[in-house]
Amino acid sequence: MKLYDAVIAPNPRRVRWFMAEKGIEDIEIIQMNLMQGTHKTPDYLQKMGLANVPALEMDDGTTITESLAICRYLESVYPAPNLFGTTPTEVAVIEMWTRRVEMLVATPFMFAVRHLYPALAALETQNAEVGNYNAAAATRALRVLERQLADHPFIAGDRLTIADIVAFTGIDFTRMLKFKIPEELAALTRWADHMRARPAAQAGMVRA
Amino acid sequence: MKLYDAVIAPNPRRVRWFMAEKGIEDIEIIQMNLMQGTHKTPDYLQKMGLANVPALEMDDGTTITESLAICRYLESVYPAPNLFGTTPTEVAVIEMWTRRVEMLVATPFMFAVRHLYPALAALETQNAEVGNYNAAAATRALRVLERQLADHPFIAGDRLTIADIVAFTGIDFTRMLKFKIPEELAALTRWADHMRARPAAQAGMVRA
Repeated sequence: MKLYDAVIAPNPRRVRWFMAEKGIEDIEIIQMNLMQGTHKTPDYLQKMGLANVPALEMDDGTTITESLAICRYLESVYPAPNLFGTTPTEVAVIEMWTRRVEMLVATPFMFAVRHLYPALAALETQNAEVGNYNAAAATRALRVLERQLADHPFIAGDRLTIADIVAFTGIDFTRMLKFKIPEELAALTRWADHMRARPAAQAGMVRA
Repeated sequence: MKLYDAVIAPNPRRVRWFMAEKGIEDIEIIQMNLMQGTHKTPDYLQKMGLANVPALEMDDGTTITESLAICRYLESVYPAPNLFGTTPTEVAVIEMWTRRVEMLVATPFMFAVRHLYPALAALETQNAEVGNYNAAAATRALRVLERQLADHPFIAGDRLTIADIVAFTGIDFTRMLKFKIPEELAALTRWADHMRARPAAQAGMVRA
């Protein structure tokens, strides 16, 4: 299999983190350069359908984009440790939390960075009103995570799951805007410190 | 099981449509009234964690929100007809398309209605700039669906899946804004006509 990756974007980081938690090392990683547009060539577009990273090329040639579709597929090939749930009920609870953190926090923070981080003006038209709206909405929604993490070590309950990976990579992407988790969110801060210290946090990251 | 539903909102409609395609008739439906705030009572919040509909209460008392988590759980209890895929590869392709239509079309159209439909000002602060930005983004993204539907009868390929339900309910919600699919999107128009004619399109709908 081949993974089309981009070190600066938040969604590819979900997949790298997921692979690191499972110890997956036998997938070829191909780096795309978003600033140079290597994800917009006719070949890439023809193969993936959209100019999106991450993308996975399976051994049978099937290609998929969308980080969570990629992770769920990888879970079927590399089942341990389980990160999506085992019983239908556990799968449902983990998917609920994954979607909550994505819709309430990770996606709005991604829009905030996209519309407010100066260097990204090279990639698309920025709209500061849209950026500020999303940053405020995501910041408010951190209280939902705080309430859950006050009673549970991880977002979907007692163990690390895909929900934690989506939440942390989304929140950590806001370092581009020098955002800090508010101090009064003590449970969220404790959880974020734990996530930042996991070896998978470094997977494929480029630090200045 | 019990489903907490709301006839006017788009996400509960996904679940009603999904249940209708499977012929599920043995789940108790409890109508919430969003305008009267019956989803914001202390009892409901305590049970669901968030003031969201739809929500599902399982037979063991577990409660989940998030329409797609609910649908995937229902698929495990009522497997036929399959709407999420059977093999890991098919599951991945269907999830990719479901996420594409949700992120590119359904969610931005939902934000457009939320911020632009006058009567919804009673529910939350509206921001016309955010509404217009989302309406324009979703309208542009319809071309992604047009390209796919020009070569395939349904969004994820040869048969109806959860991707079609998410796409159609998202697009159809824009009737609140009197939005019409542009005529030049002929494949999308053909597919939408088919979706509108399916019996499941009427599930739980209130028409003036």
